[in-house]
Amino acid sequence: MKKIIPQATINRLPLYHRTLKQVAQLGQNIISSNELGRLLELTPEQIRKDLIFFGQFGMKGLGYYVDELAAHIEKILGLQHHWRLAIIGMNDLGKALASYPDFLEMGFYIGALFDTDKSLVGTEFNNMRIYNFSNIKNIAPRKLLDIAVITVPAEEAQRAADRAIDAGLKGIWNFAPIKLEVPMGISLVEEDLTFGLSTLSYRLAQRSK
Amino acid sequence: MKKIIPQATINRLPLYHRTLKQVAQLGQNIISSNELGRLLELTPEQIRKDLIFFGQFGMKGLGYYVDELAAHIEKILGLQHHWRLAIIGMNDLGKALASYPDFLEMGFYIGALFDTDKSLVGTEFNNMRIYNFSNIKNIAPRKLLDIAVITVPAEEAQRAADRAIDAGLKGIWNFAPIKLEVPMGISLVEEDLTFGLSTLSYRLAQRSK
Repeated sequence: MKKIIPQATINRLPLYHRTLKQVAQLGQNIISSNELGRLLELTPEQIRKDLIFFGQFGMKGLGYYVDELAAHIEKILGLQHHWRLAIIGMNDLGKALASYPDFLEMGFYIGALFDTDKSLVGTEFNNMRIYNFSNIKNIAPRKLLDIAVITVPAEEAQRAADRAIDAGLKGIWNFAPIKLEVPMGISLVEEDLTFGLSTLSYRLAQRSK
Repeated sequence: MKKIIPQATINRLPLYHRTLKQVAQLGQNIISSNELGRLLELTPEQIRKDLIFFGQFGMKGLGYYVDELAAHIEKILGLQHHWRLAIIGMNDLGKALASYPDFLEMGFYIGALFDTDKSLVGTEFNNMRIYNFSNIKNIAPRKLLDIAVITVPAEEAQRAADRAIDAGLKGIWNFAPIKLEVPMGISLVEEDLTFGLSTLSYRLAQRSK
């Protein structure tokens, strides 16, 4: 019987993954739930409760094998799929995401760049051609595009997502400050950059009391 | 006696805040925990449990006053402080953040732009001058800067944060893919753009099973 992993645990997996990778880079092979808890600011009980879903990786009283646990989390997160991203909107944010170094390290590839601006279409960014977004339906299967990264302005975002879905992309990562609607079978993650800032605001306000 | 608000509830406050603002914009004055739950994909029980920390905003059986609850959450999050951001690193990401429309709407102001690149210093972006980062100690008190937004490469990020803290900034919002160390009394939020992408990867992998 397959256990259902709670959403809160799923939400913490990228955090576990990043931390385990960092620990591995330092040459450490085994990590205890206490140490992992200290690094992640979680209780050791929470760590053990989260990781119980991933089978027997712990060694009673000793800890977890860093590489084995990282590989298992990678599998759960689907990172071994090597998803290919289409950046839609080559403004400052689109450029920043197209050259974000960590994506490649995590196994995400920039598959194609798109814009509708005639002065950008046909030019190159980071040695990659910027395609006319109107042609995404032709380009998507050739470039095996999986995920549309929507960086266009709010008022164009829904139309851009609809077109990308129509072209066969199965994932939408939305940076436009508007809630998008997607049909069944399409995965959507809405990114809101004000969230991190709100957390920071909360902490600053608490301190200034 | 003051109740201690759990971290998980704090983490959800920006989400509540955004949703309440959207609901208010549609002219709705009262919202039930059922409806809020549907919008936020949380159970009504979770909503009531979260919002009990904010005093008596509910009307038994009816719901919450949208504006009153939004204003209260704003206060808890410290959004009425009108924090002033310094963007440190005017690359694509710095530019994207300097012109992100939602920050102003949330009460965050772009206070000053900084770079060390001589070809950028003295030029303008969005009608704002780009200052030499070496001068942040002089500029910070004049511009009342609160939060340093670190968009420089990983290898320069710690030094940039140290300098901003030395110049009196109390908050660090770090986009560089490296964990920073800050002294006591300084608030740090690390932004990792791979997290949203990992969540999307997870959902795509689940669907393709």
